[in-house]
Amino acid sequence: MSSKTQVGFVGLGNMGNPMAKNLLKHGYPVVATDVFPEFCKEVQELGAQVVQVEFTHLFLHLLCNCFYSEDWILCILQIVDNPAEVADKADRIITMLPSSPNVIDVYTGPNGILKKVKKGSLLIDSSTIDPAVSKEMAAAAEKQGAVFMDAPVSGGVGAASSGNLTFMVGGAEEEFNAAKELLTCMGANIVYCGQVGTGQAAKICNNMLLAIGMIGTSETMNLGIRLGLDPKLLAKILNMSSGRCWSSDTYNPVPGVMEGVPSGNNYQGGFGTQLMAKDLGLAQNTATNTKTPVPLGSLAHQIYRMMCARGYANKDFSSVFQFLREEESQ
Amino acid sequence: MSSKTQVGFVGLGNMGNPMAKNLLKHGYPVVATDVFPEFCKEVQELGAQVVQVEFTHLFLHLLCNCFYSEDWILCILQIVDNPAEVADKADRIITMLPSSPNVIDVYTGPNGILKKVKKGSLLIDSSTIDPAVSKEMAAAAEKQGAVFMDAPVSGGVGAASSGNLTFMVGGAEEEFNAAKELLTCMGANIVYCGQVGTGQAAKICNNMLLAIGMIGTSETMNLGIRLGLDPKLLAKILNMSSGRCWSSDTYNPVPGVMEGVPSGNNYQGGFGTQLMAKDLGLAQNTATNTKTPVPLGSLAHQIYRMMCARGYANKDFSSVFQFLREEESQ
Amino acid sequence: MSSKTQVGFVGLGNMGNPMAKNLLKHGYPVVATDVFPEFCKEVQELGAQVVQVEFTHLFLHLLCNCFYSEDWILCILQIVDNPAEVADKADRIITMLPSSPNVIDVYTGPNGILKKVKKGSLLIDSSTIDPAVSKEMAAAAEKQGAVFMDAPVSGGVGAASSGNLTFMVGGAEEEFNAAKELLTCMGANIVYCGQVGTGQAAKICNNMLLAIGMIGTSETMNLGIRLGLDPKLLAKILNMSSGRCWSSDTYNPVPGVMEGVPSGNNYQGGFGTQLMAKDLGLAQNTATNTKTPVPLGSLAHQIYRMMCARGYANKDFSSVFQFLREEESQ
Amino acid sequence: MSSKTQVGFVGLGNMGNPMAKNLLKHGYPVVATDVFPEFCKEVQELGAQVVQVEFTHLFLHLLCNCFYSEDWILCILQIVDNPAEVADKADRIITMLPSSPNVIDVYTGPNGILKKVKKGSLLIDSSTIDPAVSKEMAAAAEKQGAVFMDAPVSGGVGAASSGNLTFMVGGAEEEFNAAKELLTCMGANIVYCGQVGTGQAAKICNNMLLAIGMIGTSETMNLGIRLGLDPKLLAKILNMSSGRCWSSDTYNPVPGVMEGVPSGNNYQGGFGTQLMAKDLGLAQNTATNTKTPVPLGSLAHQIYRMMCARGYANKDFSSVFQFLREEESQ
Repeated sequence: MSSKTQVGFVGLGNMGNPMAKNLLKHGYPVVATDVFPEFCKEVQELGAQVVQVEFTHLFLHLLCNCFYSEDWILCILQIVDNPAEVADKADRIITMLPSSPNVIDVYTGPNGILKKVKKGSLLIDSSTIDPAVSKEMAAAAEKQGAVFMDAPVSGGVGAASSGNLTFMVGGAEEEFNAAKELLTCMGANIVYCGQVGTGQAAKICNNMLLAIGMIGTSETMNLGIRLGLDPKLLAKILNMSSGRCWSSDTYNPVPGVMEGVPSGNNYQGGFGTQLMAKDLGLAQNTATNTKTPVPLGSLAHQIYRMMCARGYANKDFSSVFQFLREEESQ
Repeated sequence: MSSKTQVGFVGLGNMGNPMAKNLLKHGYPVVATDVFPEFCKEVQELGAQVVQVEFTHLFLHLLCNCFYSEDWILCILQIVDNPAEVADKADRIITMLPSSPNVIDVYTGPNGILKKVKKGSLLIDSSTIDPAVSKEMAAAAEKQGAVFMDAPVSGGVGAASSGNLTFMVGGAEEEFNAAKELLTCMGANIVYCGQVGTGQAAKICNNMLLAIGMIGTSETMNLGIRLGLDPKLLAKILNMSSGRCWSSDTYNPVPGVMEGVPSGNNYQGGFGTQLMAKDLGLAQNTATNTKTPVPLGSLAHQIYRMMCARGYANKDFSSVFQFLREEESQ
Repeated sequence: MSSKTQVGFVGLGNMGNPMAKNLLKHGYPVVATDVFPEFCKEVQELGAQVVQVEFTHLFLHLLCNCFYSEDWILCILQIVDNPAEVADKADRIITMLPSSPNVIDVYTGPNGILKKVKKGSLLIDSSTIDPAVSKEMAAAAEKQGAVFMDAPVSGGVGAASSGNLTFMVGGAEEEFNAAKELLTCMGANIVYCGQVGTGQAAKICNNMLLAIGMIGTSETMNLGIRLGLDPKLLAKILNMSSGRCWSSDTYNPVPGVMEGVPSGNNYQGGFGTQLMAKDLGLAQNTATNTKTPVPLGSLAHQIYRMMCARGYANKDFSSVFQFLREEESQ
Repeated sequence: MSSKTQVGFVGLGNMGNPMAKNLLKHGYPVVATDVFPEFCKEVQELGAQVVQVEFTHLFLHLLCNCFYSEDWILCILQIVDNPAEVADKADRIITMLPSSPNVIDVYTGPNGILKKVKKGSLLIDSSTIDPAVSKEMAAAAEKQGAVFMDAPVSGGVGAASSGNLTFMVGGAEEEFNAAKELLTCMGANIVYCGQVGTGQAAKICNNMLLAIGMIGTSETMNLGIRLGLDPKLLAKILNMSSGRCWSSDTYNPVPGVMEGVPSGNNYQGGFGTQLMAKDLGLAQNTATNTKTPVPLGSLAHQIYRMMCARGYANKDFSSVFQFLREEESQ
């Protein structure tokens, strides 16, 4: 464990928080920061707990002789003021931020990582952002002699907590193993996608197709029900036929068809409509900028955008079934 | 075999032809008709072959004593002039026709089945048509004391030839077993869907979701390729993630990603764009008439319609990938 | 006035009522019916009033000698039991009905017009229906030696009351003048469109383009406002540029931009979203059946359909601006 | 004329070239540059011609005494190497560039205007770009004590040549008159839209609604023709009804309906599909970034994008009628 050098972490929100915790669990000293002090505090407390629990488990009971102190914990989890300080203390840094402007600021801003990054540092950005921004950050990092990789995740807060995220990684292939060493602490699947930006591309592509499949499944189930089909039977028929997709066989949007999915829980939990709208916006911008026609992806974006405007922002994205379903009064 | 009474068959086109042949193969005497005399002739020849081959195989070599003649063959495969004559000779009739107007004519026209249908007859329509027309036909049949069921198929000419079609059956549940006896000769899956019209509904719903998934997969693969992803790798990532669908994992539209699919053969064979446009038109009419919103289904219909106008009518429906892909010169 | 023979009228709803009244006003004796007795009663009362007022005005005060009685009124406005009776008493009949099935029933049903229609009768249908149904009715009428024309209207209840409707007329050109004689009593513009069904076609086409223009204007105004433009200024710029359309310059959907339009009155009055959805459904069916690609028309239909499901059914169709506008809470 | 100080001009392409020429015609000495030397050369020649012709006309024939020389011409039209040099010599500069990255480079690049801009300079950008970039440029200019305004144009090369462009101007209201003095030389309508970026916003909004109207008109005309309507008659009916829009009454996309429009000339000339696709891409990005739903605008963008991929890039944008029209062979 002594061989594990400090890992930097910027962005301790809903996703970053459990990810950083998983790094600690795997024995990596972490130096972290966030613009919101309360996020830092929360991680600090969680970190302390983690260390306590883990070390109790791993060491106290294995060794008869145990010593640890709050100071020591603070040593393995250190909160600093800004990204530049993180870069000053760690040469492997993971960032997990809400959107492109945050990433630009955290890397190239006045207190950004690149102000104090060391030559040869490995910078891994797990935010979901425009691939073009990933490429810009990679170019800026290269000027400082550092390596930038994009590694957005699929899987929500649950997968982040249990360390079961999927990471889609873009960047120099020769750095992939170094990235994988850290990402394995937080995810179950680490997929190399190609040059910088392709991790984002894979993420955006998957979510665009997911949204299309979900709206399509919702329309289809609704139409079938209107035409007199039993929803469970219809789902069964689709799933044994060419209409089959993840949204029909694993995450069916019609209440009562499947158990353990948000449609069975009033569309609580899961992946929020607002987050889907954000990812579809990225897909749209990327498609526009590369002059790629994406007619259904584009309409899917508009539908999730209209839903955000009609009170569905925080419901799971499968609530599009509810949005499309005509109300009794009509 | 002697217990098998004559089965009527109306519509001996690309699909009806091998379906009727499979009934013959299973030992059912068939009385058939079509508006095109050449279709009748073809089946007659095929029927003769079938009988020859099958009987040679099943009987000649098993029994030492064999007698059969052209007359005898004609006896088990009889071509008559019109649907009314079919109904005069058979009390179980299968119809396989291109579109709603043909079905209306074959059942209720001046020489239609209902002119001479016997009480208690079982009428099975395997055409893909508007469920509302199926309901009209069922009501008209009921007035004559006959039972009408809709049983559209999924699977193309290949599945029709090999007897591997899927039948989606709508109609009175107590008649399902009687229908199944015949349909089993022609299909591998016989699914009961509910009251009359639900077989059509299931078919239409599946194909609408299929079209959405196929266009969505094509857009997504195209966007990913533009963003620098390797198509095979992207397909693999989608297929292990929530973007997975039949069009991505079984019938990928990008040439080179999978073998044995139309995209690998210049989009020859498979399910024609024109046929998909027809089914989407049915879905659209049905959705319009039931006031069901189907935004992506509607746009999918328009895209396949535009493709028909741009020279893609006879290509496999996965050629939408080619349609969306920007040409080099742009 | 004595030369004016009785005119039949079937369908005395919101539109038919004032239309029939205008025929009375122009001195035509009317024999009318409706499936709803209360509609008949209402017209009878209105008719009496009309006659009283008009005759008071036109005759009592002009002539010194006046005689009229309730009996006489009933003579010029006669309510009968069904369309067949109307056809028995009048050889010029106008029908104004909600949808295709009603028209089919009123013309070809068991008590339909065609049961008792006289040879040489002129039948004018002002309902907005599928042009294919108009053609069917014309063919059925022709078999009885009668002439059928389609003459749907544009303009709402207000225009019907004031006699300012626009009639789009399809049918034999040599009958147009005969139709025009009557239609002039109810409308300001009587446009000959071509063979039977083209009146409907013109109506459907106009309303499809209207819906597209209205949604487009709403999207554009909303986007402009978001980008910091003053709505009145933006409307002015559009209206002097190539973005100009009826929805931007005559019926602007943004509250406060224009006076005297539904957007200034919480989208009350005007042309209901549900009615627009109906017309777009006709356009959609017609386009599907003629294999015509109408991508924006199709999406416009879906949007109005979604609005009906979200509580906008009875608001003016310009309320799509409100539907698209994101709520403050998002 | 002597009181007119030098005006800078950056971007001498199809639009910038005649615009600069019009400044010269109005007697403004111009100092210009372009990244393409051949553009500079062309303007220089044109400039010389202009000066010759104009001065011949205005001065030679009016005054008996005339002297001018090539040197003198070069003095009133000076070509320099880069935007920084333009800023060094002129305190009023107009830029006319293809897209956002060019604008960023011309203003903030290593040889950009802002490197040598004088305090109090007026910088007017007539490019059509993302309003967000206009705001960035304005902020950067302000830091140097200069004023930046966005003033995109509507009207094509013809309007640029004849000085009949419409300018939509965004920026500080107190600078509008100063901008108008120059813009009046090149345009017939100079509209003040509001703060920086609103000029772009107005332009983008207009073109989005224009595209929607054009596709809508094309769909509608095509559908009407299919339903048996005469195209000229249908256009007339739409134009007197609520379907009326600029695309139906001023720029009808159906060959033969109107004269003097691109549809009558095989869609040559006019406003290219590729340019419309570019503007719709800007509208899309802007809508995505402001989370504004624009369903029809979004689909219009996709349709023009698909057209670019199918060989329509350089045809007038009204060729969408041709794109949607089904071919005879189908």
